[in-house]
Amino acid sequence: MMSTDNLDPEFDTKIPDGDDRERNVCTRCGFIAYENPKVVTGSVATSPDGRILLCKRAIEPRKGFWTLPAGYMELGETVEQSARREAWEEARAELELDQVLALYSVPRISQVQVMFRARLMNPDTIAAGPESEDVSLVTWEDIPWTELAFPTVYWALNHFKEIEGETSFVPFSNPQDGV
Amino acid sequence: MMSTDNLDPEFDTKIPDGDDRERNVCTRCGFIAYENPKVVTGSVATSPDGRILLCKRAIEPRKGFWTLPAGYMELGETVEQSARREAWEEARAELELDQVLALYSVPRISQVQVMFRARLMNPDTIAAGPESEDVSLVTWEDIPWTELAFPTVYWALNHFKEIEGETSFVPFSNPQDGV
Repeated sequence: MMSTDNLDPEFDTKIPDGDDRERNVCTRCGFIAYENPKVVTGSVATSPDGRILLCKRAIEPRKGFWTLPAGYMELGETVEQSARREAWEEARAELELDQVLALYSVPRISQVQVMFRARLMNPDTIAAGPESEDVSLVTWEDIPWTELAFPTVYWALNHFKEIEGETSFVPFSNPQDGV
Repeated sequence: MMSTDNLDPEFDTKIPDGDDRERNVCTRCGFIAYENPKVVTGSVATSPDGRILLCKRAIEPRKGFWTLPAGYMELGETVEQSARREAWEEARAELELDQVLALYSVPRISQVQVMFRARLMNPDTIAAGPESEDVSLVTWEDIPWTELAFPTVYWALNHFKEIEGETSFVPFSNPQDGV
């Protein structure tokens, strides 16, 4: 078979039969690339002394900025498994999830972000995973507000603070002034 | 340009450079078809007299079975907009969303389902949309339990009943005996 490694797909937009929206269809092979919003799962995880786990990004976008352990959900997992996996991959952190802190939508980039409140079970052995330059446990006062990677990190931290000490609460959605 | 309408894409699985998982790569054009879990949004919506909105499916899968107004989230919308759009498309129903009732994961088919509790604002003018054979407002006693389309419909109805009358509550996730 001819090698196709150097061929790029070429997409045109058209409305497939039985559909009501334009989709990307490859002019080379006819493949319909349905695009759907992507799910990001993440956590505001605290150590027993109340410090919050942050990760310094080793990759773009926003390399060098601080974020919560979070990332794209993969096939075949639950949202809870995804949030724990991301914390392990980015910070070698073992989490016990408490409850859903917030469900954010970022329609500009078609993301849904599920943020959990969580307990960090191994605060003494966290370490930067391959996608992190550094990991840190910070008090509320020491959060590097001007060096946060994404608006949703800012939202989640503030929403976390808002229900501090409450054992159950209604999850937040986008703040009124949010996207 | 050669017509490609009758060519199907042919996918092989391989791990792209810089990735750590097998992805589907088209052997004809090299396109990497990243697959991510899909988000379904839906609602348990009640009329002022407490009856629940159900839709009889006009399409496969589970044609002829009853479901909640729900469907795949599209690009560029929020989860709330998506839930309201689906209710309109399937039942010409105008909803006011209350709060997130449940966040279910169905890893076997890589779905995340966001189910809202909602108020049906136009109970007298609901009507079957193109994907519904029929729509109905049913009391709890009249729910057609043996003719429900999907397990998550069953879960959502029971979880809805569990917090009936409560103005705020912690959202449910999969029941213990769920997938």
